[in-house]
This record gives sequence, structure tokens and C-alpha cells, in this order.
Amino acid sequence: MKINDLALVIKGAIEGDSDIDITGLSGTENARPGDLTFATDDNRLALAEKSQSACVLTTNTVRTSTKTLIRVHNPKLAFLILYKAFYKQTLRTPFTHPSAVIADTAQLGNNVWIGPHVIIEDKVVIGDNTLIDSGSVIKRNCSIGAFCHIYPRVLLYENTVLKDNVTLHGGVVVGCDGFGYVKDKDVIYKFPQLGKVIIEEDVEIGANTTIDRGSLDDTIIGARSKIDNLCHIAHNVKIGKNVIMAAQCGIAGSTVIGDNVTMSGQVAVIDNVTIGPNARIGGQSGIIGDIDGNAAVWGSPARPVTQTKRQMAVLSWLTKNFSLISKVVKGGN
Amino acid sequence: MKINDLALVIKGAIEGDSDIDITGLSGTENARPGDLTFATDDNRLALAEKSQSACVLTTNTVRTSTKTLIRVHNPKLAFLILYKAFYKQTLRTPFTHPSAVIADTAQLGNNVWIGPHVIIEDKVVIGDNTLIDSGSVIKRNCSIGAFCHIYPRVLLYENTVLKDNVTLHGGVVVGCDGFGYVKDKDVIYKFPQLGKVIIEEDVEIGANTTIDRGSLDDTIIGARSKIDNLCHIAHNVKIGKNVIMAAQCGIAGSTVIGDNVTMSGQVAVIDNVTIGPNARIGGQSGIIGDIDGNAAVWGSPARPVTQTKRQMAVLSWLTKNFSLISKVVKGGN
Amino acid sequence: MKINDLALVIKGAIEGDSDIDITGLSGTENARPGDLTFATDDNRLALAEKSQSACVLTTNTVRTSTKTLIRVHNPKLAFLILYKAFYKQTLRTPFTHPSAVIADTAQLGNNVWIGPHVIIEDKVVIGDNTLIDSGSVIKRNCSIGAFCHIYPRVLLYENTVLKDNVTLHGGVVVGCDGFGYVKDKDVIYKFPQLGKVIIEEDVEIGANTTIDRGSLDDTIIGARSKIDNLCHIAHNVKIGKNVIMAAQCGIAGSTVIGDNVTMSGQVAVIDNVTIGPNARIGGQSGIIGDIDGNAAVWGSPARPVTQTKRQMAVLSWLTKNFSLISKVVKGGN
Repeated sequence: MKINDLALVIKGAIEGDSDIDITGLSGTENARPGDLTFATDDNRLALAEKSQSACVLTTNTVRTSTKTLIRVHNPKLAFLILYKAFYKQTLRTPFTHPSAVIADTAQLGNNVWIGPHVIIEDKVVIGDNTLIDSGSVIKRNCSIGAFCHIYPRVLLYENTVLKDNVTLHGGVVVGCDGFGYVKDKDVIYKFPQLGKVIIEEDVEIGANTTIDRGSLDDTIIGARSKIDNLCHIAHNVKIGKNVIMAAQCGIAGSTVIGDNVTMSGQVAVIDNVTIGPNARIGGQSGIIGDIDGNAAVWGSPARPVTQTKRQMAVLSWLTKNFSLISKVVKGGN
Repeated sequence: MKINDLALVIKGAIEGDSDIDITGLSGTENARPGDLTFATDDNRLALAEKSQSACVLTTNTVRTSTKTLIRVHNPKLAFLILYKAFYKQTLRTPFTHPSAVIADTAQLGNNVWIGPHVIIEDKVVIGDNTLIDSGSVIKRNCSIGAFCHIYPRVLLYENTVLKDNVTLHGGVVVGCDGFGYVKDKDVIYKFPQLGKVIIEEDVEIGANTTIDRGSLDDTIIGARSKIDNLCHIAHNVKIGKNVIMAAQCGIAGSTVIGDNVTMSGQVAVIDNVTIGPNARIGGQSGIIGDIDGNAAVWGSPARPVTQTKRQMAVLSWLTKNFSLISKVVKGGN
Repeated sequence: MKINDLALVIKGAIEGDSDIDITGLSGTENARPGDLTFATDDNRLALAEKSQSACVLTTNTVRTSTKTLIRVHNPKLAFLILYKAFYKQTLRTPFTHPSAVIADTAQLGNNVWIGPHVIIEDKVVIGDNTLIDSGSVIKRNCSIGAFCHIYPRVLLYENTVLKDNVTLHGGVVVGCDGFGYVKDKDVIYKFPQLGKVIIEEDVEIGANTTIDRGSLDDTIIGARSKIDNLCHIAHNVKIGKNVIMAAQCGIAGSTVIGDNVTMSGQVAVIDNVTIGPNARIGGQSGIIGDIDGNAAVWGSPARPVTQTKRQMAVLSWLTKNFSLISKVVKGGN
């Protein structure tokens, strides 16, 4: 495609030669001749100029360049749209590796791809165009939608439900027993973990994350939510739609997380609380009570960001002025 | 079983029709007709009333209902006892999937169940009625007791010892090398990791948790302890009996944790310290020294809970009154 | 080997019978007759004396003993050197288990050992004397150097590069998609994750750790760095050489970590910051900005260790003297 054609797709303004053929998209460091890349500031543009790329997507405020530029409001988004145009998702070819172990009662849709050493147990249902990659284990009664991508070495415990277009990365475990025990006179009894996990449409889950089945009710991950690597979602948790959760977060049992919540890494949330929609949670926060919708909180325990920052500033001031404070307090005796 | 019979088992007081047949146990949201469920407060009772359940286990203080109630002191515990009565653990049927790779020198007990693609190396010993599920790897010289449940995709490094009735969830790694290095003039040497892991009776370990082998001595997880998902237990750690450790905790090398300790999620404990028996550790705590038995601590670094809370309250007060404090301190110049 | 010979290797001073035959090396608790063990203080020496060991490596300051001692400056390092002398790394025997699935286009070097149920996809290149243990999955175009040790159930996504002598422990996932999304008018688009992971020589990675591929550029782990269990390395991160990172650390996208940095457990580092060479980061720290080379920082957010400790001391003092402070501040009204 010519630069001219690409610029039309993303409604960008061309600066330089618009007649060049673009043969691929890439990051600046790996750019080959004919590639389009992108730069969000002057420093990144300098890197792009040193590369072999033919054209650079950039913002309206970045400086001019010897390379052809396409200026747009959001270069990352524009890059993404062009990427989809270049590499359209293709339908899968039906395939089952002979080493896969598939129960007779399993129902596979059209164009399902099953890799080596995959195990699919009784009464599993798999939708059209879904890929189950090497070594994954799908236990009995699981239901997997269409266009799902299950990376290698994923494990779904029995009764797990994945809707359409769910992506699970390597090592993910879904539906494992929740951590439910009842102590009676120093004896620890395990509470039955009988619920299941439901993962709605367009969810993506990062490598080695674990999601517990419900104890009696179900654990639910809402549509279009994205969960990063090594997160822990406990039993009966309800995660809303469009939630973004960074790596190593842990959500304790029966907690409810509203739609559009964003959470930075290593956040811990205790059990049985509610985080309102659109709340933003800073990294390493410890949530020990309900959080209002639209709130921005940070700290362990978490408070409104402005309050946490003010407390930090006050403690800094008090530390710097400690000898004075100590004198005043003693003088007040 | 009739409601009458069930109430006798758990010494409960019936309120309503005691002659109904109970055909199953379930959580409120999934209750089918004929099911018994439970409710610990009035809100949960309202949910149970909307369900198709036939009978609700509840406390002595919850309100009356249109459904038949059985009132007991601890409904969760009573539910658990009834659950055990309904679904008794059955002995396993001996089975080995043809795709499993089992060394000639491995010794399997009676009624052992080995799933597809399991790998069992030389001189492994497996006790009666143990289940090794799909894709698990048991390296040489491991010893596994009776009635163990090894979920899919578990990995035991060589020489690991599991006593009876141990449950390991999907993706658990036991016996991996500890993180032991010696630095000499900027060269990092790996210290030999030669010990093993011993997991005692009735222990349950959550998905994707990792437990390092001892470097020279052994790592030990005491009987009846429960460890949640994504925890890290370093080399030479000794965990006592009846310990409850929530998700994403990390215990550094050679630390000793006493019996009955409970730990909330994301706690970090440094190496070579001792946590006394019955101590309770709050979520996200950082333990950087010994903790007395029976202590309740919280914070990073952890202090007695009351002290941590008091410090938080004082900092809040100082922040609120900052302009006044600042004036007094300057006036004291 | 005689004690005399061993002492020569490590330039140690013998105290006691130097003519005894040493037949093995071990930790104190597992010591068999004829074993050499080591003790770094008087308490450990007491344990060693109770064991069946024949000889104890110790420091110059530890007390005398009934056992033969070899005194050296650094007993751990000396033990390690003797360990290497006793158990020399041997070349591997070429082997491929019949259950392994290996693409025709894969290139295996000499003396490569491939365990059961391993999957090696198209165009993978594996160097001499490398071991790929049971159930590991190596996706297409990966390049693995010589003398690598891939433990069971490891997963390498496509294009991953491992240089020589890399060790990956069980459950490690390398090359999974980074957590890159672009939000536009409440729609979450996935940003393409096209880069790869490069792991340089002599790196060791702990069990169940995950390392994301670069989004457009590459993620790099520098030579001789050691990363513990359950760590998360995000897309485009560049980790220098000789870095030591303890368990459960999380490094967000595009962050740069200099050579020789050491990091205790559960540290979180935000995206796009730089940690200078030789910096030391305390446990559970939260890094939210650049850190100078050679700095020692601690806390969340992290500050110089001395400053964090001073703030803690001041807050303690203020809490203890709160009634007095409160009176002075009110009096100042």
C-alpha cells in the first residue's frame, strides 16, 4: 500500500513523499526498508530516523523530519488500525494432532485446531475457529466459545465456561479450588468448592495467572476485561466489563469489581468488598474497604491519591524539621 | 434424606416442614429443587428464598422464612458436615492412560490413577488410592503417599516427599532449585541446591505455587497446612502444622513459621527469621525480624496491629492539622 | 580425597586429623559418614558436631571442635569450589524420547537430550549439550544455545532467543504477549506484540516466572543475571548483566535496569524508568521514578534507605509523644 492510501485510512496528514510503497509495520529498533513505524515524541523520532523505516506515524506537535511523516492525533491507535488492515485475522484450518487425547463425548466445532499432547475430557464443547495449543488440559464439561486462543500448557478445571474470543496465555489455570476452610476447635475443614468460572467475550488473561472456581456460586470475569500475568482471582469474585488489571494483583474471595476499573500492578484487595465502576487503583495499593465509583486511590491501606500524597509530604516535612519539632514539644512540657 | 434426618446429624433446630426429601447440596445461586443451601445473614436468606432450594441452613439470629430452616450455631460448618455425608470420598479405580510414560523402576500402589501424558521417572514410589492427573511430571526418587490428589500439570523435582492425603493444584512446582548464589569479586557462583522438599499429611497447595528444595538441608511444609495460589516458599523454610497462608505470599530462605500461624495475602517474610506459633499476619505485611507467638502484626515493616493503626491515625491527624503545626513549629523558632 | 588435598584446593588451614578420606559433600542435617559439611557460626558448628560428618569447613573466628575443621575466609565459597571439584558437569548423552514431537525443520546440535512429551516446532535451533526436559514446549523459530538446561513444563513462545548456558526452571513462560492496550472512547484495542525475548549467557530463571515479548522492540535479560520464582518482566524491559532479582518482583514495560542491580522480593517497578547500575532495592519497594546508580533505596514509594528509616523513626516518636504534641498544637491556637 502507498503512504497515500494508508493516510486515508487513518485520516492523517502527510509530510514528505506520499508515493512510497509500505510493505510492513514494525517497531523502530527492528524496522526493515519499506516499513512504517511510529514515534510519539522527538526522541523516538530521532530513533526512527536512524532506522531503515520508510515512513513514521507521529503526532501533530513532533518536529519535522527527513523521513515521510503521517501526522495523526493518536499515533499508537492509528498504528493499531493499520496493523489490523495489514494482518487480517484468518480463519483456522481444522487440525488435530495425533498425540492429542480427546474424549469421544467431546464436541468440536468447525475449523478447530488442536495441538500436540492436548487433553480434552468428557462432554467438553468447543466453538468454531478455536485454537487449543500444545499440552493444554481441558477437563470435563468445559464449554469454550468460538475464535478462542488457548496458548500452550493452559489448564481448565471441570465446568469452566469461556465465551467467544477469549485468549488465555501459557500456564493459566482456571477453575482451581478456592481457598475456603472452616476452623472448628483447631481442626481445619475444607469447604466444598463446587462453583465454576465464567469468562465472558473478548477477555485476555496473562501467563500463569490463576482464577479460582466459585465455592458455591460462580466466579465471573466480565466481557472485554484484560488481566495481566501472575494475577490471583479468588473464589466468587465478580469482575465487571472493560476492567484492566496489571500484573501480580490479588483479589480475595467474593469481592466485586465494577466496570472500567483500572488497577496497576501488585494491588491486593481483601474479600467481600466492592470497587465501584471507573475507579483507578495505584500500584501496590492495599484495598481494605469499599471504594467509590470514579475514585482514584493509592497506598496500603488505599486512600484518595491526593490524601496519600499529602500525608507523604507532611511526613517528609516533619522529618526534615524534626529537631525543631522535638524542641517545641519538649518546651511545651 | 429427610430434613429431619439431616437436622439430627448436625444437631439443628427445624423451623417449618421437616418431612421434605433433600436430594442435593448447593450454593444459593445454583440451587435446584430439593437442594439444601445455607445463609449466614438476612440478605443471604432473601437470596435463598428466591432460589428453588427446599431448605436453608442458618443461624439462630437470622429472621424466619417461608422456606424450611435448620438453625445451628455455625451454618458453614454444618453444611460441610452434611456435604461429607452426601458425597463420601470413594476409593479410586486403578487406571493408567496408555500415553503416560512410567519408568520400569517406579512402584505404584493399589488403585492408583494415572492420567494422560503423565511422566513418572525412575524409582518413584506412589501410595494406594493416589491420583496423578494429566500432564504431571514426577521426577526420579520422589515418594508420594496414599490418597494424594495431584492435579494436572504439576511438577515434582527429584527426591520430593509427599506424605498421605496431600493435594497439589494445577501448575504447582515443588523442589525447584533455591535462589542461592555466592558473589566473589563480582562473579556470581551458584550454590549447590541438594536438599529436598517434604510435604506432610493433609497439606493442600494452590495453583502455580512454587516450593524450593533445600540447599543443603530440607524444606518442610507441616501437616494440615494450607497454602493458596502463587505463593513462593524458598529453600530451607520450615512451615509448621495447621498454617494458613493466603495467595501470593513469599517466604525467604531458612525462615521458620510456627504452628497455627495465619497469613493474609501478599505477605513477604525475609530470610532467617522465626514467626512464633499462632501469630496472625495482616495482608501485604513485610516481616523483617522475628515475630512472637500469638502476636497480631500488620504493615510493612510489620508491627503490632494496634501500633500500626495508631501510627496511621496520628499521621492522619498531623496531616489534617498541618497548617497549625507548621505555624507552631515556626513560632517556636 | 583426603582432607589434606581438599584444604590445598581452597587454601584452608586444617585443625585436627588431616588424613581422613572425604567421600561426599552435604548439608549438616543430611550428613553421612565421610561427608564434609560447613558451618558459618558456633551454632551451626554445634549442629555439624552432632551429625555424622567427618570434617567441617568453617571461618577463622568460629570456636575449636572435636571434628576436624578446615578454616577459610569464606566457607560457603570454599564449599562451592569443592562441590565443583567433586561433581564435575558431564557432557550429555544424545537422546530423544519417542513421545516427543519434533518438527522436521528443527535443527538439533550434538548431545542434545529431549525428554518425553516435549514439543519442538518449526525452525527451532538447539545448541550442543542442551537438555529440554519433559513436557516443555518450544514454539517456532526459537533459538537455544549450548549447555542450556530447560526444566520440565517450560514454554517458549515463537522467536525467543536463549544464548549459551541458560537455565529455565519448571513452569517458566518466556515470550508471552505484553500487556499493551490502547483505549479509545471506552473501547480497548490490543496493541500488537511483535517483538521477542533475548536471554543472554549464564542466566538462570526461577519456577513459574513470566517474561513478556517486546511489543515492537525486544525484551532483554543480560548475561549472568539471576531471576527468582514468580517474577514478572513486562514487554521491552532491558535488564542488565549480573542483576539479582528475588522472588515475586514485577517490572513494568520498557523499564531499564542497570548492571549489578540487586532487588529483594516483591519489589514493583513502574514502566519507563531507569535504575542505575549497582543500585540495591529493599524488599516490597515501589519504584515510581528513576533510581541513581549505586543508590540503596527502600519503601513504597522507594526513597534512600536512610531517609525511609528516619521517616519511620520520626513517625514512631510522634506517635509516642502524641498527647504532648496534641496539647502543644492546641495551645498554639
